[in-house]
Amino acid sequence: MNKKKRFAVVLAGCGVYDGAEIQETVLTLLAIDKTGSTYQCFSPNINQYHVINHFTGEEMNEKRNVLVESARIARGNIKKLTDFNPDEFDAIVFPGGFGAAKNLCTFAIDGADCLVNPVVEEAVLKSNKAGLPIGALCISPVLIVCVLGKMQVTIGVDKSTAEAIENMGATHKNTDGSDIVIDEENKIVTSPCYMNDASIGIVAQGAENVIKALYGLM
Amino acid sequence: MNKKKRFAVVLAGCGVYDGAEIQETVLTLLAIDKTGSTYQCFSPNINQYHVINHFTGEEMNEKRNVLVESARIARGNIKKLTDFNPDEFDAIVFPGGFGAAKNLCTFAIDGADCLVNPVVEEAVLKSNKAGLPIGALCISPVLIVCVLGKMQVTIGVDKSTAEAIENMGATHKNTDGSDIVIDEENKIVTSPCYMNDASIGIVAQGAENVIKALYGLM
Repeated sequence: MNKKKRFAVVLAGCGVYDGAEIQETVLTLLAIDKTGSTYQCFSPNINQYHVINHFTGEEMNEKRNVLVESARIARGNIKKLTDFNPDEFDAIVFPGGFGAAKNLCTFAIDGADCLVNPVVEEAVLKSNKAGLPIGALCISPVLIVCVLGKMQVTIGVDKSTAEAIENMGATHKNTDGSDIVIDEENKIVTSPCYMNDASIGIVAQGAENVIKALYGLM
Repeated sequence: MNKKKRFAVVLAGCGVYDGAEIQETVLTLLAIDKTGSTYQCFSPNINQYHVINHFTGEEMNEKRNVLVESARIARGNIKKLTDFNPDEFDAIVFPGGFGAAKNLCTFAIDGADCLVNPVVEEAVLKSNKAGLPIGALCISPVLIVCVLGKMQVTIGVDKSTAEAIENMGATHKNTDGSDIVIDEENKIVTSPCYMNDASIGIVAQGAENVIKALYGLM
């Protein structure tokens, strides 16, 4: 783990209910930095599925762009996902948040029949073909399963999401806290983070466990 | 440091250029959790000064509410700053970001002549009167100085901001990395975080140093 590696991190907006889960994203970036490596954030240049008022929980009559909002977490240092080249990276990571299931794919609306945004799908397929290990936190394993099918993942203990994952051809394993599931054959590492009732410290440890496991699959 | 303490964290929106610096905020919450204590986020229920597109850096023709946007970082678990009662807390912390200098006070526009939002001013005055130690990251020391005047703080090495702080009656000390300045008499702890050119790991350490120092002033 002493060689500097390059991580691509794919964001789905900025906010748990309609975008990337902010805390999971920041703690992923921290884990990468703490292990001595570098990161580059990416996001698709598309409109959000919708905008949620995070104080009231109600939908707002607004339009927001996933790339523009993701840039808030990345402090402006973000690239369009169409510019992602797997040859320039050693691993790719998808933090969670509803944005992963509303903006990057349609899982929150369509369940096991979900469609993945074509740019996101291409990024996953190209990464897999190039042999990059893939990390997916919280709900985002659903989009990896939707693209690649058969694999073993975890999204925690949510029964209906786990069933949908199995209906898409993957195997689900229940996990708690900062546990991770490593699928060595398909080079996928997953951890439940805020899909379970977790503290920020648990999420930080889960993200760190995912990042550390990815080094072993490079 | 083995007794559970209660931290109030005051947010100024969601995004470095027009709100709370997201990474500083998340890393402050993580530091509080890691030291075994609890936090409650607060925000004033006011409109942002403006909205910045964090991908292009340009102003957007939109209105956003500071409380509603802050709720994104806090995952909805946030209260109006008017509901803040210092008797229920052991310390209060202000993460940075331009929102601290645009929404919580007018420092970004008016410099040393800045005005502080009345609800924010009351929260600072009540905290100080109740003997709560105050933590302030990045640019947010300017608003504490604007309310309370004479004290010693740091915002890193930015010369014009340091001069404005001295013009408001405080003393500025240059700092680097995760350094902190502790003003024991006034119970103020400050650290430059992203006011300097820092990595996310440095900012995490700076936030942790501030939180740990606050325990010593309770």
